[in-house]
Amino acid sequence: MSAHAPLPLTVEPLTREAFAPFGEVVEASDAVRHFTINAGNTERYHDLANIEPGPDGRVIVSIFRGQPRSLPFTVQMMERHPLASQAFVPMSGRPYLVVVAPAGAPPGVEDLKVFLARGDQGVNYATGVWHHPLLALEGVCDFLVVDRSGPGHNCDEVQLDRHGVIEGR
Amino acid sequence: MSAHAPLPLTVEPLTREAFAPFGEVVEASDAVRHFTINAGNTERYHDLANIEPGPDGRVIVSIFRGQPRSLPFTVQMMERHPLASQAFVPMSGRPYLVVVAPAGAPPGVEDLKVFLARGDQGVNYATGVWHHPLLALEGVCDFLVVDRSGPGHNCDEVQLDRHGVIEGR
Repeated sequence: MSAHAPLPLTVEPLTREAFAPFGEVVEASDAVRHFTINAGNTERYHDLANIEPGPDGRVIVSIFRGQPRSLPFTVQMMERHPLASQAFVPMSGRPYLVVVAPAGAPPGVEDLKVFLARGDQGVNYATGVWHHPLLALEGVCDFLVVDRSGPGHNCDEVQLDRHGVIEGR
Repeated sequence: MSAHAPLPLTVEPLTREAFAPFGEVVEASDAVRHFTINAGNTERYHDLANIEPGPDGRVIVSIFRGQPRSLPFTVQMMERHPLASQAFVPMSGRPYLVVVAPAGAPPGVEDLKVFLARGDQGVNYATGVWHHPLLALEGVCDFLVVDRSGPGHNCDEVQLDRHGVIEGR
């Protein structure tokens, strides 16, 4: 148990600018490079994330099927992938929560940022960025995940001394 | 114009088995390797496609926003990416059509296979597999696309001598 009462965490909307210290937002935004292909039938929003497979790694795609969490939600731990990036793109069209802290030393609760992602926004966690495991909302949600297969240890977890709490939206 | 009347094409359901000659179906199926992570909150359907960035390539993610096509739809051309795989995963939850032909010599209409994909199924075209550009249905649909950035020519197109027609579903 934490020695202190949980710290209430503020939820902010997910934007490319606010998320930039942690990676990229994967979204079809007019602000990114895009162009028309397929004889006018398709708009390509191009190269939206810095996908890093890491040393001797290859990029793989998987589906994560997340059980919905309920609010208030207590953030007790964080994890990071020290070798590679990891992207989550919703297939269910539902919003979800993203909790991050800067790469580097293990975070304390005061380092956490919480974003509410729309159902048409993915996120790519840059290599080493601390993040909470998938926080689906509203129902069982599938996400396409783009990450690494390769040798070596690629997941660290840290328990928070003081917890955070996401009260609502 | 084609010298012959278009050949009616049969639409079949997209399954991993039927699509195997052309690549992989990206779906959360009990038939693929999966395991529980995130303290029981997430099921990971693992490494669902053979993502090939090709020589000197890197894997990129983009969003393709496809305009819906209407049926009957006439298939007049096909394309292939000779250097790399290309995966499409729906973000809109809507069904779509997949038209493929085996890698190798440019296809004739009799080589085409047409699949109806569910909105929770992606496809990964293996390197060199002939396919029609994105065929969204029912509305504007976004797809996450996992393909290649790198040097060299990576798109061939072929016009079909005889066209095919997808009559309906």
